Parts: sequence; structure tokens; C-alpha cells
Amino acid sequence: MLSSIIPFTPEIATEVSKYCTGVSEDQSAAQKEVWDWTCSQFQDAHKMSSPLQGATMKFLAEHQRAKRSNALAWYESTVATQAEIITLELDPKMIAASRRTFDKHGLNDRVTLIEGPAQESIEKLSGQFDIIFVDANKDGYEGYVKTALDNKLLSPTGFIMCDNVFARGMTISPDANPYLADGPRAYWTECGKALRKLNTFLKNDPRVDVVLLPVYDGVSLIKWKTTEYLKLVESIMASQVESIMASQVESRLRGREKEEKYANLLYISKGREVYKLTYMRVK
Amino acid sequence: MLSSIIPFTPEIATEVSKYCTGVSEDQSAAQKEVWDWTCSQFQDAHKMSSPLQGATMKFLAEHQRAKRSNALAWYESTVATQAEIITLELDPKMIAASRRTFDKHGLNDRVTLIEGPAQESIEKLSGQFDIIFVDANKDGYEGYVKTALDNKLLSPTGFIMCDNVFARGMTISPDANPYLADGPRAYWTECGKALRKLNTFLKNDPRVDVVLLPVYDGVSLIKWKTTEYLKLVESIMASQVESIMASQVESRLRGREKEEKYANLLYISKGREVYKLTYMRVK
Repeated sequence: MLSSIIPFTPEIATEVSKYCTGVSEDQSAAQKEVWDWTCSQFQDAHKMSSPLQGATMKFLAEHQRAKRSNALAWYESTVATQAEIITLELDPKMIAASRRTFDKHGLNDRVTLIEGPAQESIEKLSGQFDIIFVDANKDGYEGYVKTALDNKLLSPTGFIMCDNVFARGMTISPDANPYLADGPRAYWTECGKALRKLNTFLKNDPRVDVVLLPVYDGVSLIKWKTTEYLKLVESIMASQVESIMASQVESRLRGREKEEKYANLLYISKGREVYKLTYMRVK
Repeated sequence: MLSSIIPFTPEIATEVSKYCTGVSEDQSAAQKEVWDWTCSQFQDAHKMSSPLQGATMKFLAEHQRAKRSNALAWYESTVATQAEIITLELDPKMIAASRRTFDKHGLNDRVTLIEGPAQESIEKLSGQFDIIFVDANKDGYEGYVKTALDNKLLSPTGFIMCDNVFARGMTISPDANPYLADGPRAYWTECGKALRKLNTFLKNDPRVDVVLLPVYDGVSLIKWKTTEYLKLVESIMASQVESIMASQVESRLRGREKEEKYANLLYISKGREVYKLTYMRVK
């Protein structure tokens, strides 16, 4: 199709949304509990990602086989389950809600909540993340993404997902959404200005590829360009080769029958070449 | 947001589509050439995926780092560039158009076009594919996806993408798209029936996870459930362990300073355990 969006009326949009939800993966019991609880506790629960968007994020997180994720999320329904997760939160009410959910669903072994302004917190983070989910104050998005890229917090094969990049349509035009009520319109109009700036920044940043998907309230996906990916992989390898000599690795490999189940090995291929065995940690 | 779709008017939908295209990755010169040429040659070029959808697929293919893909595509603009690609095509006019594009853009070293009915062709395929793109006769989708799963053509970490699952809205309801002209309406209504059947099949297949994304003309993403992923990985390893003994691998590793750049190694971890070094090919 030459245009990328099917125009639906509000009534039909609701029907299409329900149909998609019905034929996609079901929410887990825990997701449903958090969803219902959030709806009962927060007047602005309408800002929460839809169950279908939650299913989409769970799908992508599983597909990514993420080991580490940084969820800049206001709401807990979209948090993936198996990875190490670091979440940044400012609002005391949301901090309390998050801690209640982590306790109730036994997630404290894998989730770390860092309290305070996200920009300050993200600047202190280190290591690499497979998924970085940005769903926070819209005038902060550019800073969060820029810091994640500048400080190489995004893993070579990871992606950043920014939510609400349409700002209910206000990013595109003040006329884009006649159904938006006057109350939230002023808020989303301001968000739209910040998000136009973000989009220009992303489009012009030579380090990354970006697509703005016309789905949900606008979802931007960001990944390293191949040139940056290769630079990152080489730099990771170089630092690891220095710290572990090949001979050590070999001697351990020879005795690996007993030890291998504790070994953590990383091989990285670049085209047809395979780099050195660069990393091994035996407990 | 509690609903998953923002309802746009046709005029606004066009504007939103243009905005997204503008801030997403640009088409390459080759993509643009194929796009313009297809528009000039085919009366039904309006069926072609939009440039934004093309950019999305290129993004996902690069992110997947696909080595092998099976594009059941009618149009060539969405074919990824670096992987080995097998494409199945029935229509003589589309076969000629595809061959012209492969020649013009020097793709014959990586693309294989198999002529004939896709169901017959897919049943003869072997090996595994990282991306399987299904964009063909809608009443054939269920058979193509079922064969890909039954014959394990989808790699453990790969995904299947089915396009046009909304059938312009007719999958959801005959009333879903008042802007659909009478001419194509009958065709898409029939497609909608087949696609409802596909969605029911996918939702009930215990081997896979699925999300139907409300984007473009409806895009279904399909991946193996984790249980199936583990079974597949174990079966791949078992067949490789049999053919290459660990001792051989070790002796080659000891001499790897010279040989390693031709080695192709596969390590697969399951939870905290790391499986044996199962595969090594030294030229």
C-alpha cells in the first residue's frame, strides 16, 4: 500500500484493537493483576500502554533474548520478566506502586529501582543494555537517548524503544487528532514540540538507524548502524583480550569436562573471520 | 493508552505517514529505483509495501543479523540486502520483474528465485531461515506458515512476518473501512475470511507466540515459544555432536592461532549451563 496507515473511525479503531488483542498472546495472570490494580489506583491509568502493546513488548523482549534491560517506564505492566532490569523512577507514588508490584510478584531478585531524576541516574549507569525502553517526561527523551549512546549503554545488538512519539498526534500537527479532549490537549501539544526535536536529533545522528512506527501512540526503534556495531564489538574484544590471556583459556578448556558448566564464553564473528576466544569466567 | 490505535482521518493519515517516513531511515538509491520502476510498470503498484514499511523491514532484518531469509514476496522493494535470500514466485510477470531487479542491482550472488506454486516450493526447502516473510495469496498463508513450522524451516531465534493480515480492514469487519472502493472490496473481503482462519490457527498453535500489530495493513509476528526454542537447539546440537568428536575440536583449538580465522564455532547456552563446543569447520 502506498500509504502506511489505514484511517479508522474511533468506533472501528476500538474494534480493531480488540480483535488484535484477541488473536495475540494472552496477558499472563500477573500482567492482568498489575493492569487491573493500576486501573483501580491511578486516575491517569489511561496513559498506560494497552495490553496489546504489552504483549508486543513481551514478544520483542523474548525475541531479543535480553539479558539486561533498562526500563524508563512509568508503569510496570510492560516490564519483561527474565532479564536483569534497572528501572529509573522519580514520582514517589510510582516508586511505591513499583515496589508493591516487585514484592507481590517476587521480582526483587532481578529488578533494581533507582530513585531520582532519570537524567542524573542514567549518567551514573555503566555496562550495556539489550533493551532500553524510554517512556518518561517527553522533554527528557533526547537527553536520555543521547546519554545512552554517548556512554555506550546500548549493547552492540540492542535496541532503544521510545514510546508516545506521536504525542496523541500533536507531534505531527495540532489538527491531527480531533478526538483529543481539551484537558490533555495542552499537555500533549507541549510534548509534541519536544518530540519533533527528538526526531530531528535521531534522524541526523550518524551513529544510529531509526524508524518511527505508526503503531500505538508512535513507537521509535533505534539501533546502532553497522559501522558503530563493529567498532563497539572490536572495543569490547580488545578490553577482554587484554585481561585474559589465550593460554589461560586453553588450559581451562582442556579441563573443561568438569568446569564447563560454569564457563561463560563469548565468540564474536565478523563476516567470515572468527575472533579469538576472548572471555571466560570460571567460578 | 487504553486503546491501541489512534483514529486518523484519511487526510491526516497521509500526513502522519509522510512525517514518519521523513524522520525514519531514507530509502537507498537502489530501493528508490525499484520503487519508481515498479510504480511505472504495474497498474496494481498500490499493493506494494510503503517506503516506510520497507524501511521497517530493512531495520528488522539488520537487527536480526539474518544470514538466511525466505521472502515470499510479490514485490522486490522489501528484500533485504546482505543475507542469502530464497524467494518463491508464481506469476511470470513478477518473475521477469524480479530477475530484472536482481540483474540490475547485482544480487544474483545471494538471491535464488524458485518458480512455481509457493506451497510446492516451500515443501521442498530444507535448512533454517532467520526471517520468513509471507506476502502472497492470502488463502495460502496458513499452509505456508504451517509447513515452515512443521518442517522446522524457522531457525530457533528467527521470526515469521505475515503482511496484510488486516486485508484493508476486512479481516475485522465488512464495516471497518468505509474508504475502500467497491472494486477491490470483493477481493479483500475474501482475503479477510482466509486471514481470520489464519489468526485462529496461530492463536491455537502451542508451538508459537504471535502478535498481530495494528500497523500498516496489519502485520503478524510469529516466533517459537521458549519450550520449542530449547527443543530445536538441543536437536541441532545433538546432530552436530555426533558428527564431530570433542577430541578433534580440542586438537584443532590448540593449533588455532593459524587456523582460527577459518573456524566457524557455535556455542549455545541454556540458562547458566554452556553446552559443549559442538561445531567447527576448518578449511
